[in-house]
Amino acid sequence: MVRLNEIRDGEVAVEPPEATDAGLVFIGRISTPWTSRLECPRQGRQDGPLCTIEVFEPWVAALDGISKYETLEVLYWLHESRRDLVRQSPANDRTVRGTFALRTPVRPNPIGTSIARLVSVEGNILTVQGLDCLDGTPLLDIKPDRSIFVPIALPQSGDFDTA
Amino acid sequence: MVRLNEIRDGEVAVEPPEATDAGLVFIGRISTPWTSRLECPRQGRQDGPLCTIEVFEPWVAALDGISKYETLEVLYWLHESRRDLVRQSPANDRTVRGTFALRTPVRPNPIGTSIARLVSVEGNILTVQGLDCLDGTPLLDIKPDRSIFVPIALPQSGDFDTA
Repeated sequence: MVRLNEIRDGEVAVEPPEATDAGLVFIGRISTPWTSRLECPRQGRQDGPLCTIEVFEPWVAALDGISKYETLEVLYWLHESRRDLVRQSPANDRTVRGTFALRTPVRPNPIGTSIARLVSVEGNILTVQGLDCLDGTPLLDIKPDRSIFVPIALPQSGDFDTA
Repeated sequence: MVRLNEIRDGEVAVEPPEATDAGLVFIGRISTPWTSRLECPRQGRQDGPLCTIEVFEPWVAALDGISKYETLEVLYWLHESRRDLVRQSPANDRTVRGTFALRTPVRPNPIGTSIARLVSVEGNILTVQGLDCLDGTPLLDIKPDRSIFVPIALPQSGDFDTA
């Protein structure tokens, strides 16, 4: 039932514009136990296998202070995903849903996001639990989990705006 | 105290590699009340001002089914942010922290993520609360909030892997 590159009954592909509006830099590499998309979890779990995130230079100094956060938001590039489907059939049963109503890796900008539990930090290597991606997935960003992060900068006027 | 493009005491900039490892397509545009970075909230709030997300063609069909989700994860491109700081001083007080230990917009890949409350959907326009970005911010992705999304595809072996 996994998608490799096929289009299933009822699915709709579009001709997307060139993906040149902004450019990404791969800042590291994620190691997981899953070497095929046929094995990857549909969603990571906080008691999942230990995975490692290697951060490349010149970004290693950007890890300073990260160990005080128990959970991290990790962004990565789903490098094997097609990008042109607007309607998809996750169960391959002719029922189709819009891509933005799904957390499928197949999306116009295939960026995966997970909340990972931080187990340890050693130099440029983070050990975490909770990821769902392929071994070798390129890293895009790491941020403290929004639910535990308290801004350090002074508030701005927008912080007080309500509907 | 807002960062425009200055480097503050103690901060460290690096010479980043060219950002050409992958390319993004801007799939829509976000409208908010904030037209200057001096006003943007540090973090969005679920009772914040109504903001709109316009989705461009050919991606509008990908919104099918989105209205059943009360909260959405929204990804956007922080188009005014510098990308080269590895140590930052959010309070401009000579205390510095690593970029990955902060939710600052200044990061190697300036991708913002918010959890937004979906108020309404009309055609290609979503009205939401909870965003924190500048008016005119380019949209990268919309996904159902992970905390309420149940995968539709059949489980794979990785779903059962634990540490």
